[in-house]
Amino acid sequence: MSSERIQAFQARAEQALEARLPAAGTLPCRLHEAMRYATLGGGKRVRPVLVYAAGEAVGVPAEALDAPACAVEFIHAYSLVHDDLPAMDDDDLRRGQPTCHRAFDEATAILAGDALQTLAFQVLATDTAAQVDAARRLRMVELLARASGSRGMAGGQAIDMGAVGRELSLAELENMHIHKTGALIRASVLLGALCQPQVADADLDRLDHYAKCIGLAFQIRDDILDVVGDTATIGKTQGADLALNKPTYPSLLGLDGAREHARALYEAALASLEPLGARADTLRTIATWIVDRAR
Amino acid sequence: MSSERIQAFQARAEQALEARLPAAGTLPCRLHEAMRYATLGGGKRVRPVLVYAAGEAVGVPAEALDAPACAVEFIHAYSLVHDDLPAMDDDDLRRGQPTCHRAFDEATAILAGDALQTLAFQVLATDTAAQVDAARRLRMVELLARASGSRGMAGGQAIDMGAVGRELSLAELENMHIHKTGALIRASVLLGALCQPQVADADLDRLDHYAKCIGLAFQIRDDILDVVGDTATIGKTQGADLALNKPTYPSLLGLDGAREHARALYEAALASLEPLGARADTLRTIATWIVDRAR
Repeated sequence: MSSERIQAFQARAEQALEARLPAAGTLPCRLHEAMRYATLGGGKRVRPVLVYAAGEAVGVPAEALDAPACAVEFIHAYSLVHDDLPAMDDDDLRRGQPTCHRAFDEATAILAGDALQTLAFQVLATDTAAQVDAARRLRMVELLARASGSRGMAGGQAIDMGAVGRELSLAELENMHIHKTGALIRASVLLGALCQPQVADADLDRLDHYAKCIGLAFQIRDDILDVVGDTATIGKTQGADLALNKPTYPSLLGLDGAREHARALYEAALASLEPLGARADTLRTIATWIVDRAR
Repeated sequence: MSSERIQAFQARAEQALEARLPAAGTLPCRLHEAMRYATLGGGKRVRPVLVYAAGEAVGVPAEALDAPACAVEFIHAYSLVHDDLPAMDDDDLRRGQPTCHRAFDEATAILAGDALQTLAFQVLATDTAAQVDAARRLRMVELLARASGSRGMAGGQAIDMGAVGRELSLAELENMHIHKTGALIRASVLLGALCQPQVADADLDRLDHYAKCIGLAFQIRDDILDVVGDTATIGKTQGADLALNKPTYPSLLGLDGAREHARALYEAALASLEPLGARADTLRTIATWIVDRAR
């Protein structure tokens, strides 16, 4: 993600995450080291950047958005740690580094993921900016829980595990991604916007539609990169999905068809931002990056 | 737990849990079946019963306590599912039934545990009785998160994993249990009491001291049962801790020493309930059961 604004949000997220993770020297040390390793390993910070950019689009300063930005990234980090486990995707590489259970051990990775999920709810409940009242914070906790749970992200991973080696229709594939990655991306955008106490419901709807579209576009790009990217650039094993015989957009639509689908979603995302004016420019830049990115 | 009051609380918890779990036919079905299997498998419901009994001790009706009662049990159920995994304790039996990863598979068990944790926070945030205001509900979410996370229950499990095959002092063993089981037992008692908006800080302190004492006593009894119980009665493999060369109270203090230690904690627990009068009788019965139980 290239714009200076996005880089500033990435740097801000990095600092905010660092400050909210227990220090490596805090007992039990190995668990805390694993939580830090899994979170601070240099991800793209797509979800925190979306929190900051969605807040910006409705007039919330970045300082007021650190807690939800960290909460969504802790959920994302926990899900990666667990998805990489031998019983799940059995991945050795993540962000170009050994996965958490490779760098530590399986038991520590399971516990680090568990504790990162807990930390997400703790941070969101306690650390959200003071201008967000308690009732709205509770609504944010509920939103994050629904997006992460058995009918959100974890449910999407379950659908994914059940789909390995099976033929999926496009509708089934999309349903899987709407849960597995889409739900948390939508939550990121909505949590950022909800930090504006005066946000209009119509703007929440617009932002939610934007988030739905870029969430799917993000996944399509991921699938394309699994085919055309190389291991060093994408930071995980190229062809891993194909090797697992997982259904993907390119396998269902062909490479060109997948690219066209992503482009249509990109344009729908931009259209829904139109009434928000220039304040939504960072959200536009993120959408552009999502469909063009090389990693 | 023998008293009629406790049996009524157990039955109430069972119904409340059932009502808050997604139906088995809800997609993704296998994940929801696993969540139900792991939660509704007939546990003793110690933590929900503590929520109800602590609420009763400060004048909260049981109807107002279902949400925190379920939240603590969902956290407990998730921790059992993950602790039983091959990479952790590698247990085949739990409550006399195949463990979740044996009945389903490892990936489903990991995800079911993850989603049960999420459900705990969702239920606590959204479903707590109306007389508890939003600010206090947030405090309850924070309390549950701190009790469950890397400096609470998950941290205790990490300490436990690090202790296998190692000599522990009594202080180290106690530190492990204070986190692994004690933190959630304390949270159960406090969450119940916090549902009384007028609860006095002094009563919270008394209940917290009670909870600390019975939490440790519970663990000592567990260790004793691992030596003297039989597999059919305790519902898990007798001698499992010894076989893993895990440090236990009997191995450090001898059987009689462990029994004496549990008895002293029992008396301290009862002493701290004294000012609460007859309303705390169910808490007293629970304490008696904890040190006398055969399973």
